[in-house]
Amino acid sequence: MSLAVFGSVGLDDISTPTGAVEGVVGGSAVYFSLAASLFTDVRLAANVGGDFPPSAWSTLRERGTDLSGLQLFSDRQTFRWSGRYVGDMNEAQTLNTELNVLLEEPLVPESFKDSRLLFLANMSPSTQLTILEQFPRAVAFADTMNLWIDTSRENLERLMSLVYGMVLNDGEARMLTGEHNLLKAGAKLQQMGPDVIVIKKGEHGSFLFTPDGRFGLPAYPVENVVDPTGAGDSFAGGMMGALAESDSFSMESLRRAMAYGTVCASLTVEQFSTAGLEHSTRHMVDTRYHEFREFLRFA
Amino acid sequence: MSLAVFGSVGLDDISTPTGAVEGVVGGSAVYFSLAASLFTDVRLAANVGGDFPPSAWSTLRERGTDLSGLQLFSDRQTFRWSGRYVGDMNEAQTLNTELNVLLEEPLVPESFKDSRLLFLANMSPSTQLTILEQFPRAVAFADTMNLWIDTSRENLERLMSLVYGMVLNDGEARMLTGEHNLLKAGAKLQQMGPDVIVIKKGEHGSFLFTPDGRFGLPAYPVENVVDPTGAGDSFAGGMMGALAESDSFSMESLRRAMAYGTVCASLTVEQFSTAGLEHSTRHMVDTRYHEFREFLRFA
Repeated sequence: MSLAVFGSVGLDDISTPTGAVEGVVGGSAVYFSLAASLFTDVRLAANVGGDFPPSAWSTLRERGTDLSGLQLFSDRQTFRWSGRYVGDMNEAQTLNTELNVLLEEPLVPESFKDSRLLFLANMSPSTQLTILEQFPRAVAFADTMNLWIDTSRENLERLMSLVYGMVLNDGEARMLTGEHNLLKAGAKLQQMGPDVIVIKKGEHGSFLFTPDGRFGLPAYPVENVVDPTGAGDSFAGGMMGALAESDSFSMESLRRAMAYGTVCASLTVEQFSTAGLEHSTRHMVDTRYHEFREFLRFA
Repeated sequence: MSLAVFGSVGLDDISTPTGAVEGVVGGSAVYFSLAASLFTDVRLAANVGGDFPPSAWSTLRERGTDLSGLQLFSDRQTFRWSGRYVGDMNEAQTLNTELNVLLEEPLVPESFKDSRLLFLANMSPSTQLTILEQFPRAVAFADTMNLWIDTSRENLERLMSLVYGMVLNDGEARMLTGEHNLLKAGAKLQQMGPDVIVIKKGEHGSFLFTPDGRFGLPAYPVENVVDPTGAGDSFAGGMMGALAESDSFSMESLRRAMAYGTVCASLTVEQFSTAGLEHSTRHMVDTRYHEFREFLRFA
């Protein structure tokens, strides 16, 4: 099943209790694609500036990712984000954001438009809606963030009435619904339109809500969390990649896909930037998947 | 397998976002026994004052609990605790504690001393050590709290070198080991003596560490958390009760016991005080156990 992703390419400055890095590769579409490409062929669309290192695409190229949706603005700067994690590292403190080339609408290549699966990473809901309209045959999932819940609620609600699935974190789920309890929040989010709701809880795992029932997972147990940046996008990428591979949206397939998403997130947080996913293979992912199942097993 | 528990009987004043109650039945030994008695015969030892309602024992009596370890101080007051839960209710704010009859050492009936399983709920480590000495043939598990980590570390470490298992919450595990990461904390706690470490994470589930490996569970999904008081003791009671019933400390048996503990905790938090466990039957527990396994299942 063909999988297209629209999101950001970024250069990040990150500080965590374990260290700090500057100007490293990041962005939702990059993390997503590095995870999803372990399962399926990915079509990536994002804006990028002249300062982004072309060498950063080598792993995705090797994994067969279609990069024809990259729109290069050679005399402008790539999206930059700087953030800091403290304490339990469950939430980033954003220190600075420079949208730069993200201010332009993304390119939607004709060749992407027959994609069966579409992931709209965090972007303004109006941009997400514009893209969605051009994928009439796609099963679409979308992410969002607190900013849009505050400032673009109407468009966000319209988006939610049109997509098949929403992937958001616990704080966003609570903010959107006014429900502290995540099981109640999940049910309310389903009432807003999507058949499938995935709530990511960071180090505390994830919940799935579908018309056929609910599912929950803890996070994969990681002893050395180095950098949580991109964990949520890696989760979404692993999940959507596994869905594309399985060619099914059954409850069984969604459960399995979320476990794969959990594994991809665990690989990301063990290293700075995209190093964890770059150095991973499908075999490593499958090994960790089976370890995770064993970790959780009881009779 | 015979199971003895030493802990507190209390009268609690509790305020949560859903309501408030005063002078209700509580105490670690009560929650523990109400959960454990769904699986096995329990021997309960605790001090109680003249103000404690004798009718509160009817459910435990019906479930065959041996109450000969109850030491009644008829002209004194029962242990009182008042606490408040706010926000996500994951941690209580203690407003007041009156130890009252807990200042006296507990009674250790001769008839209890052949117990094969012993649970030492939170008490001063020196009291726990005094009790433990009188159970030379028991497989002992103990709980503790931040107060003892601060004030009685030497005795606590001695206790940990003697017990088979420790059951503690995430904050205590971090405080005892100085490790923020709970997987590292669990490994360090094992090095302090116990073969088995159980770390309770409240609404985020639990971890198990044994010589044969690790295991993890999320919490049972509860939509209406009314009162978290006693959840940890209910978890321990369900776990120890299931262990006693299975007559085994294998990894399989421990995994299963923790899932039962998780179910018992979920029953407790859905109502104030001990009402959730009082109104539960083994059939209800088993139904929820199977629902929980289904909730977590992936292939």
